[in-house]
Amino acid sequence: MERHAICLDLGGTNLKGGIVSESGTLTMHRSTASEVNRGKKKILQNLIDMTAVLLRDGKNSSVHPEGVGVSTPGIIDTTFGGLTGGAVNLPGWSNTPFMRVLHEHFDLPVFAHNDVTATALGEATYGAGVGMRHVIMVSVGTGIGGGIIIDGKLYEGGTGYAGEIGHLVTVAGGHRCNCGIKGCWEEYAALRGILRTAAQFLAKDRKKESIIHSMLEVESLSPRMVFDAARGGDPLAQRIVDEIGKNTAVGIGSLINIFDPEMVIVGGGIAEAGSIYMNAIKAHIQEWTLEDSLEGVRLVLAKLGSRAGIFGAAALVFRNINRYMK
Amino acid sequence: MERHAICLDLGGTNLKGGIVSESGTLTMHRSTASEVNRGKKKILQNLIDMTAVLLRDGKNSSVHPEGVGVSTPGIIDTTFGGLTGGAVNLPGWSNTPFMRVLHEHFDLPVFAHNDVTATALGEATYGAGVGMRHVIMVSVGTGIGGGIIIDGKLYEGGTGYAGEIGHLVTVAGGHRCNCGIKGCWEEYAALRGILRTAAQFLAKDRKKESIIHSMLEVESLSPRMVFDAARGGDPLAQRIVDEIGKNTAVGIGSLINIFDPEMVIVGGGIAEAGSIYMNAIKAHIQEWTLEDSLEGVRLVLAKLGSRAGIFGAAALVFRNINRYMK
Repeated sequence: MERHAICLDLGGTNLKGGIVSESGTLTMHRSTASEVNRGKKKILQNLIDMTAVLLRDGKNSSVHPEGVGVSTPGIIDTTFGGLTGGAVNLPGWSNTPFMRVLHEHFDLPVFAHNDVTATALGEATYGAGVGMRHVIMVSVGTGIGGGIIIDGKLYEGGTGYAGEIGHLVTVAGGHRCNCGIKGCWEEYAALRGILRTAAQFLAKDRKKESIIHSMLEVESLSPRMVFDAARGGDPLAQRIVDEIGKNTAVGIGSLINIFDPEMVIVGGGIAEAGSIYMNAIKAHIQEWTLEDSLEGVRLVLAKLGSRAGIFGAAALVFRNINRYMK
Repeated sequence: MERHAICLDLGGTNLKGGIVSESGTLTMHRSTASEVNRGKKKILQNLIDMTAVLLRDGKNSSVHPEGVGVSTPGIIDTTFGGLTGGAVNLPGWSNTPFMRVLHEHFDLPVFAHNDVTATALGEATYGAGVGMRHVIMVSVGTGIGGGIIIDGKLYEGGTGYAGEIGHLVTVAGGHRCNCGIKGCWEEYAALRGILRTAAQFLAKDRKKESIIHSMLEVESLSPRMVFDAARGGDPLAQRIVDEIGKNTAVGIGSLINIFDPEMVIVGGGIAEAGSIYMNAIKAHIQEWTLEDSLEGVRLVLAKLGSRAGIFGAAALVFRNINRYMK
């Protein structure tokens, strides 16, 4: 009989849960408010409640999950059984040994990982990367996060900080990133870079011919606005999207040159723009990639969307449970 | 009894050979001309002769090597048993199944790899990286080559082209690299970048106060000249070295952010300048590296020098021979 896992995806707004089979079927999908402002006890209780409900629902369908996987913001310390930091939007969640609590409460093995990494693992295992051994996941949103899957395994580096691909320096000495480094890729290709690029192009449009100017009378500048205008045929917006594609392709090209992956998956909030975004990246990728390496790589959009965290939690369980049982 | 390997390092000028024990002792070290201009048959004969001499010398000392390791320029195809290309300085060496020939001639397992990768493997296994699991080797010379050792294993990527760290784009849209990409790291931090930087600084030195101007009356500009002048206290040369350190640190910082290695080993022709070069890199590394990642990493000079290829060949044998025997 196929194995199943309880999968939890804790975000700043919602706590999502579900039961995922080893082959990747999601059932019993549920979502509830994370209630991060009500403190760590409440968050923990919500995790316990969600797990209990899912176990009960599973039991009613004769499904008996063998482990619990958790995707959460922050840096996990498995020895401690919880976060040691890094989750700025979940005050108090650091220093909560939620893994240990869940384990003791349900007598099931519990596996957890940082959400960015879990998302990458989910996409690589159950999404766009099915069947691939060497995958780089690039999540473009406020910043650029990533996950590096090498030879089928998550690469975590010497001390667990690997995969900070947003802090590849692509414009040495350029705009200062939040991290302090001048010229990080994410400062050009993620939210701030996209807004800066758009503002620069709009400022040069003296005659205000772009439709974006009228859109700005209603709401403030956003990547979605630019992509919508470009899709609608606005020439200035299309030039901005082209520039976004170029700035994004620089970093992806460097990653391909270093890793020679089989696949690069592009996901995250910005990638929700879809094919117009991917086409802009593809239009520029060969400018920044070695010919031999580019030949062997597929560049694709993420497939799982907001369910990537759930599937990542599932991948965590099924990748680690055998080792746990020994 | 300890195991031994015949180790060959084929270069454009010399063919070096030796017997290396599994614990890393090099004996019977020999060197002869590669004679690359005399065609592939002659190169192959030289490899056979060197192997035969080493086996005989070994036998006289009761040492019986169990395999042959070869470090060579170019891209190895193990199925074919030789290069499929990439060795521009060894015309005809591509399409020579030297691995198969050596194997049939000596009835020993033969392992071979690209020289840049072999050098990295040598340094990681028997040189500066002894005992480390996650090592990045950066070889700075005419270009920047590298080797990525992850969890003790060589990372070769999806199709064998991984590790082209010289083609990390650090100055997007900058000087065009030989590969066609504008702004590759090696275009700034390797030979051409160093010479360009030096020329720019010298041009600004209108009063010709730097000692380098008088050195240029005797020979043409070289990195060695700049490092020598800097070591001698020449202020302009010291500023050039500082700039070289900055340009080199950009790429190393990006690699640390991505890989979170335990150690970065800097080697290659330029690194022969030694501590003055390393100190210049270290003076700038924190400008380009995430604080958390920098904490866990050691930045060191390569130790093995011109013997790294030989030791790399040894590492190839001892890393693979068990799998081969099965």
